[in-house]
Amino acid sequence: MDIYGGQVNRLIEELSRLPGIGGKTAQRLAFHIISMPDDRAEALSNAIINAKRNIKYCKTCYTITDREECPICSSGERNHKLIMVVETPRELAAYERTGKYEGVYHVLHGVINPSAGIGPQDIKLKELMIRLRDDVEELIIATNSSVEGEATAMYISKMVKPAGIRVSRIASGVPVGGDLECIDEVTLLRALEGRVDL
Amino acid sequence: MDIYGGQVNRLIEELSRLPGIGGKTAQRLAFHIISMPDDRAEALSNAIINAKRNIKYCKTCYTITDREECPICSSGERNHKLIMVVETPRELAAYERTGKYEGVYHVLHGVINPSAGIGPQDIKLKELMIRLRDDVEELIIATNSSVEGEATAMYISKMVKPAGIRVSRIASGVPVGGDLECIDEVTLLRALEGRVDL
Repeated sequence: MDIYGGQVNRLIEELSRLPGIGGKTAQRLAFHIISMPDDRAEALSNAIINAKRNIKYCKTCYTITDREECPICSSGERNHKLIMVVETPRELAAYERTGKYEGVYHVLHGVINPSAGIGPQDIKLKELMIRLRDDVEELIIATNSSVEGEATAMYISKMVKPAGIRVSRIASGVPVGGDLECIDEVTLLRALEGRVDL
Repeated sequence: MDIYGGQVNRLIEELSRLPGIGGKTAQRLAFHIISMPDDRAEALSNAIINAKRNIKYCKTCYTITDREECPICSSGERNHKLIMVVETPRELAAYERTGKYEGVYHVLHGVINPSAGIGPQDIKLKELMIRLRDDVEELIIATNSSVEGEATAMYISKMVKPAGIRVSRIASGVPVGGDLECIDEVTLLRALEGRVDL
């Protein structure tokens, strides 16, 4: 039986299309939205439309922003000779949270994944090569350590090295605070291979 | 450092005000919304505004709906002499999912909670008493089994019984499939007290 009537159902339905939001969470969110003050609900609704309408890719690093060039690329305090290559803006945000990285970024918007039909031309690789014509000292590849992430890192490395630019890869290993017993074998082997002298 | 610029931040901020949505989830949802097709983002935005503008309480049971009277109260197939009293529309939805309850509901929109300043006059109790003037055979009290839920159940029971209407309370006990070892003592005692002959 239809419990609420169309408008409530439509809101629940739209919310449950979002990633990680199941039916019950969508219902809880919908009830919350309905009981919000009018101006807060309008602020949420407008934020969705405004973000959607005004967001573009940064012309330099291809992260999402509402300007021509994102605040990081247009900052004079960052080292523009050091570029970290990430898969999505989420990883960029994760490294920004550390507050310690002083270089800039390049967002690929994906990884090479032949089985899903995603080739080198489908991610922002051409755009990365164009940036390398400028004065770049090091490229840090911070794709995820999945099979596709590793393959993409290898691909970029082979493509860039002939240009004489230093290419590095973020370290794989045991997470800080991680319990060795609970960590998978591949990571344990990586940590062993990547051991550093004390 | 501001990573994205104002519009993205505003969307993340608005999303993270929703219950159960933390900063990282809000960011993930915002990136998803930004990458959605325009019409889907507009559908979500409109669903929020439309639900907010058009939702009212059912004039009979006080659940949320976009009509004068909710589909359950206006249905000829439900038993209108059997009223289940619930705290919020969420509990109504939970019982509707069972598909087995044939009566109607009454939504209190809260429970009596003196420590939070919520008295009997702050929930839909007066409205319940008015409904009881009609031909009602049984009132099933399905408030949560929290202290406030139990107290509210007792309050309603004392208020209604003089009118000669049968008042019942949903059973407390061990959840189906529950592991006795993992269940709290109060529930175990309730299950013991409420034991039924086989």
